[in-house]
Amino acid sequence: MKAEHIEQYKKAVAAVGAKKIKNIYLVACGGSKAFMNPSQYIFDLETDVPAAVYSSNEFVHRCPKGLGEGSVVITCSHSGNTPETVRATSLAREKGALTIAFSNLVDSPLWKAAEYPIHYDWTGCDFADSRYGMIYAVTFGILNVLAPCEKYEKAIATLDVLQACIDRAKELHSVRANKFGKDHKRDSLIYTMASGSNYGSAYSFAICLLMEMSWVNSNSIHSGEYFHGPFECTDYDVPFLLLKGIDQCRPLDERAENFCKKYSDRVTVIDAAEFDLHEVPEELKCYFAAVVTDYVLRDYAEALADHRGHPLTVRRYMWRMEY
Amino acid sequence: MKAEHIEQYKKAVAAVGAKKIKNIYLVACGGSKAFMNPSQYIFDLETDVPAAVYSSNEFVHRCPKGLGEGSVVITCSHSGNTPETVRATSLAREKGALTIAFSNLVDSPLWKAAEYPIHYDWTGCDFADSRYGMIYAVTFGILNVLAPCEKYEKAIATLDVLQACIDRAKELHSVRANKFGKDHKRDSLIYTMASGSNYGSAYSFAICLLMEMSWVNSNSIHSGEYFHGPFECTDYDVPFLLLKGIDQCRPLDERAENFCKKYSDRVTVIDAAEFDLHEVPEELKCYFAAVVTDYVLRDYAEALADHRGHPLTVRRYMWRMEY
Repeated sequence: MKAEHIEQYKKAVAAVGAKKIKNIYLVACGGSKAFMNPSQYIFDLETDVPAAVYSSNEFVHRCPKGLGEGSVVITCSHSGNTPETVRATSLAREKGALTIAFSNLVDSPLWKAAEYPIHYDWTGCDFADSRYGMIYAVTFGILNVLAPCEKYEKAIATLDVLQACIDRAKELHSVRANKFGKDHKRDSLIYTMASGSNYGSAYSFAICLLMEMSWVNSNSIHSGEYFHGPFECTDYDVPFLLLKGIDQCRPLDERAENFCKKYSDRVTVIDAAEFDLHEVPEELKCYFAAVVTDYVLRDYAEALADHRGHPLTVRRYMWRMEY
Repeated sequence: MKAEHIEQYKKAVAAVGAKKIKNIYLVACGGSKAFMNPSQYIFDLETDVPAAVYSSNEFVHRCPKGLGEGSVVITCSHSGNTPETVRATSLAREKGALTIAFSNLVDSPLWKAAEYPIHYDWTGCDFADSRYGMIYAVTFGILNVLAPCEKYEKAIATLDVLQACIDRAKELHSVRANKFGKDHKRDSLIYTMASGSNYGSAYSFAICLLMEMSWVNSNSIHSGEYFHGPFECTDYDVPFLLLKGIDQCRPLDERAENFCKKYSDRVTVIDAAEFDLHEVPEELKCYFAAVVTDYVLRDYAEALADHRGHPLTVRRYMWRMEY
């Protein structure tokens, strides 16, 4: 991890350590919101300090009563210009919360709104300096000040070795991603399915990679909820992309896979159990597999875009008009 | 409200009042999970005791660290037989949490698993004795023991007058519901959209009424998230059913409506501002409008089923096989 990134995240974590923390709010929109889900998952399992994810505008308009001086509010906007996320950050700061904001743009409105802004690099960078790397540093850093533990220090050390795991996983899936793109080029609807730490990735693949960037209809079905409604839409020709995790919720994904494959001939599975994560300590694999899956997913979207002749950069509304 | 229902909910609320409460978990599957969303919304706005909703099997497999003696766990299963919800209740009880379970079936496995089981009536009953009536009694009852307040007493009194509001809203929408059914009979995909206290209803309409009972593809889009991905799927022929609330999040729904109507000719809006809720105290309308919307939605699903010749009772997997 770059020196300035280490300095930024350590400053934020030290500030959290100096406070008595009552709750943690993770606030953002769309893909930036989805990328906070694994952190919420980790907090929920590792500490009894409650952590919740909100979409920024909902957070602004119906501010939770628990927001106050005992709160840590973590926000994110890639451009640092998402108005509702900037407002959420300002609101949190007004209420006395400790604010940490992630942005790719230094000195953006979001950067200025937060007490502890943190920069991250984008494509082509090492995992440790990426958005996921930086929020994992903050997540495990906060856990380590709440209840110091070797496991959390190991997690932070893992950030610097994860890129190798990601590279291998992408290589493992390169042919499969291309097959997915070819097999689904005519589909107007593709469902995603996941649970636990993978749910955020299923959500962002559905609403960002498919709906936004590919104009393909979708819904991110929770693997447990699948049996309480959505499974009735399963048929031989209905495509599903299932993210099978290796966290505590794997049994939910296995159950969904078993059923779904029986009644649909078009189920694609990205199984984290196949990843070679040998650099990751055993007890932390459950938390790191989700981000590896997220990187692999990008290649599935790229392949689909290529076969459909609809680049992921094309938009009809976003950035092209006021809304 | 029936005497035995009053007795059951008061017993549960008194038990909560006798404890020091640290957190509230609302745990169920599918439609039963969705119906807990308004309660989570109310708790979140009215108390700083954290309240979170979980799908039962996820709660069981990755039990949050905050679960313990200071927890109140509220579960629901209509049949009282949903295995993962029964397990979630037993697990919560083992961990020392106070357990309250809603079921239509007295002496069901869920009923026996919980310390405080609560019965509710089903179709044809007065609102106060329905599932929503009973959970609102518990929700405002808990708020009233946490911080006694006339507003919460008024909310409980409102349960007995809400049926009149529901009847009028259903009447107002009878022609519109039929038109919705006719206009959408050929659609293989209908999106729902909502925010705040209505989001649970948009979710259950999407995954239960549409996907499960009508075999129509869907996704419940959050009105705020719409602009961060899903809106790119909007086109002149893409159908949306928007629930426009009168709670704190109304501005999110208005923004989504304005955009969506500009680019789709097939937007149906159920606007709670049109409901005559004159029996409901002004400061509580924001919390009661959502349940009225939920009742109206049922008629939209019935009308769609009628025009499609696919009754809401038809299933291909549910109840017909092991899964």
